[in-house]
Amino acid sequence: MPRLAIGLDLGGTQVRAALVDEGGYIQARAAVATAAAAGPEIVIDQLHWVAEAVSTGVPAADLAGIGVAAPGPLDTGTGTALGLPTLAGFVDLPLARLLAERFDRPVRLENDGIAAALGEWRFGAGRGHANLVYVTVSTGIGGGVVSDGRLLRGRRGMAGHVGHMTIMRDGAPCSCGHRGCWEAYGAGPAFARRAREQAARTPGTQLAGPIDARAVFEAAAAGDALAAALVAEEADILGLGIAGLLHLYSPEIVIVGGGVAHGFPALHPGIAARIRTAAMAPFRDVPVVRAALGDNAGLVGAAALAFEVVGDEIRTPLPLGEGQG
Amino acid sequence: MPRLAIGLDLGGTQVRAALVDEGGYIQARAAVATAAAAGPEIVIDQLHWVAEAVSTGVPAADLAGIGVAAPGPLDTGTGTALGLPTLAGFVDLPLARLLAERFDRPVRLENDGIAAALGEWRFGAGRGHANLVYVTVSTGIGGGVVSDGRLLRGRRGMAGHVGHMTIMRDGAPCSCGHRGCWEAYGAGPAFARRAREQAARTPGTQLAGPIDARAVFEAAAAGDALAAALVAEEADILGLGIAGLLHLYSPEIVIVGGGVAHGFPALHPGIAARIRTAAMAPFRDVPVVRAALGDNAGLVGAAALAFEVVGDEIRTPLPLGEGQG
Repeated sequence: MPRLAIGLDLGGTQVRAALVDEGGYIQARAAVATAAAAGPEIVIDQLHWVAEAVSTGVPAADLAGIGVAAPGPLDTGTGTALGLPTLAGFVDLPLARLLAERFDRPVRLENDGIAAALGEWRFGAGRGHANLVYVTVSTGIGGGVVSDGRLLRGRRGMAGHVGHMTIMRDGAPCSCGHRGCWEAYGAGPAFARRAREQAARTPGTQLAGPIDARAVFEAAAAGDALAAALVAEEADILGLGIAGLLHLYSPEIVIVGGGVAHGFPALHPGIAARIRTAAMAPFRDVPVVRAALGDNAGLVGAAALAFEVVGDEIRTPLPLGEGQG
Repeated sequence: MPRLAIGLDLGGTQVRAALVDEGGYIQARAAVATAAAAGPEIVIDQLHWVAEAVSTGVPAADLAGIGVAAPGPLDTGTGTALGLPTLAGFVDLPLARLLAERFDRPVRLENDGIAAALGEWRFGAGRGHANLVYVTVSTGIGGGVVSDGRLLRGRRGMAGHVGHMTIMRDGAPCSCGHRGCWEAYGAGPAFARRAREQAARTPGTQLAGPIDARAVFEAAAAGDALAAALVAEEADILGLGIAGLLHLYSPEIVIVGGGVAHGFPALHPGIAARIRTAAMAPFRDVPVVRAALGDNAGLVGAAALAFEVVGDEIRTPLPLGEGQG
C-alpha cells in the first residue's frame, strides 16, 4: 500500500515539492525560484528536479503518485494551461501531457485553489465538513469549494475563481482586465497600496518605506492608529466577499489562507462583523477560520490528489482527465 | 411504474399546483392567491386544495409523489422554513413535517431556485449539461446550480442564493437588510424604479404612469430612447452578476428565468457584451439563454423532485431529509 505522494506547487515565484505521507505530513521538501520567463520546457524541468529532490531513495512501491497544483485558469478536463499570467509561454499548453512525458508516469493536475481546498479538507481546518469554502488571499484572491461532500470542479475544472466576482461596479482595475473585482480590493497588493497612499498623507504614523501587508499588521499590533484602520478596512472587504460566498455556496466553514492570512487574528473581528451585517440571518453563524496548513495547503493538496482516496473524506474518485494519462 | 408527479409552488402571491408527467409536461394545473397574511395552517390547506384539484381521479399507483418549491432560506436538511419574508408565520416552521401530516404522505421540499434549476435541467434549457446556473430575475434574484452532474445544495440546502452577492459596496438598500446586493440593482423593482425616476425627468419619453419592467420592454421595442437605455442598463447589471457566477461555478450554460426574462431577447445583447468585458477569457464563451419552462420552472422542478430519477440526468438520489418522512 503506497503511503507517500509527491505534491508539486507551480507558482509564479517558486516551484515547490513536498513528499507527503497519508496523514498529510510533509516528510521532505524542496523549492527553487521559478524560471518564469524561461518558457514551459525549463519550468517543467524545474518541477522534475524538485520532485526528484524530495523522493530520492523512496521505493517506487511506496509512492502513490504525483499531483501538481498550478495557477488557473487551467482546464483540468483536458490538462491544458489556458493562460497563466505569471509564466511565459503557458498559453494553451498541454501541461498534463508534457508533465506525464517528463515524469514518465501520469501526473494529476489541479487548479491551485481547488488543490488547496482539498489539502485543507483532507488534512487541515476543513476535516469532517461536507461543505467548505477555501479562500486564499495573497497576490490575488483564489479559492476552492467542497460541496455536498465533493470537490466542486465545474466546466473544465474552473469553478472557484472567487476573486473575480465584482464587489464594486466600475471600480478599481483588476489584474484580470476588468474593474471592481473582489481581488482588486482585497488582495495583498491593493491592501499595501492603500497603506502606502494613506501613510504618505498621515503625519505621525509609523508606516513608512516599502510597506507591505505584513508591515501593516505589525504596525497595527504596535498600536499605530492608521495601521489599525487599514486592517479594519481590509477585514471589511474580505468579510463582504465572504458573505457573498456564504449565499452562493452555503458552506459549513470558510477557511482563509494565503499571505494576507498571516494577519488573520487581527482581521477576524472585522470579517465577522461584516458578515453579521451582510449575510442573511441563516448564514451568519458559519465560522471563518485560518487555514491550518498555511502556505502548504496547495502543496499538500496536490499530494492528496495522488492518493485517490475514495471513502468518507473524498467521496469522489479524482479521475485523470483525458490527456492526463 | 408511476408516470405522474405533483409539483407545488408556494409563492408570495400565488399557490400553484401542476400534475406533471415524466416528460416534464404539465397535464393539469391549479392556482389560488396566497393567503400570505393568514398563517401557515391556512397556506398549507391551500397547497392541499390545489394538489387535490390537479390530481382528482389519478390512481394512486400512477403518482410518484409530491414536491414543493418554496422561497428560501429554507433548511431542506431538516425541512424547516427559516423565515420566508413574504409569508406571515413561516419562521422556524417545520414545513416538511406539517406538509407530510396534511398530505398523509412524504413531501419533498426544496428551495425554489434549486427546484427551478432542476426543472430546467431535466426538462428545459439545461438538458444534457453537467454544469449549469439558473438565475431567476423577478421581485428578487434567486437561483440554483447544477455542478459536476449534481444539484448543488450546500449546508442546509441553502446554496445558490445568487441575488445576495454584493456588486456595489455600500450601495443601494436590499430587501435582505444589507446594501449593494445584485438583487438590489438587477431585480424587477429596481429596474422599474430606475424607469420611473428617469421617466419623470425625461421629456418626450412614452414611459409614463405606473411603469413596470414589461412597460419598459414594450416602449424600448417601440423605439423609445429612454426605454432602450434603461434596458441596456439592466442588461449590463445582469451581465455583471452573471460574469461573477461564471467564475464562481464554471457552468456550461446560464439559464435566465423569472418575470424580467420576458424581455430576454432585448436584454441578451447587453448581457453578452458585459460578459465579454467582465469575464476572464476562458469563461467568455458560455452561452446565456432564456429559461425554456418560463414561469413553470419551479413547478415542474418540484414535480421532478418527486420522480427521484437516478440516472444520467439526475445522478444523485434526492433523499428525503430528516423530518420530511
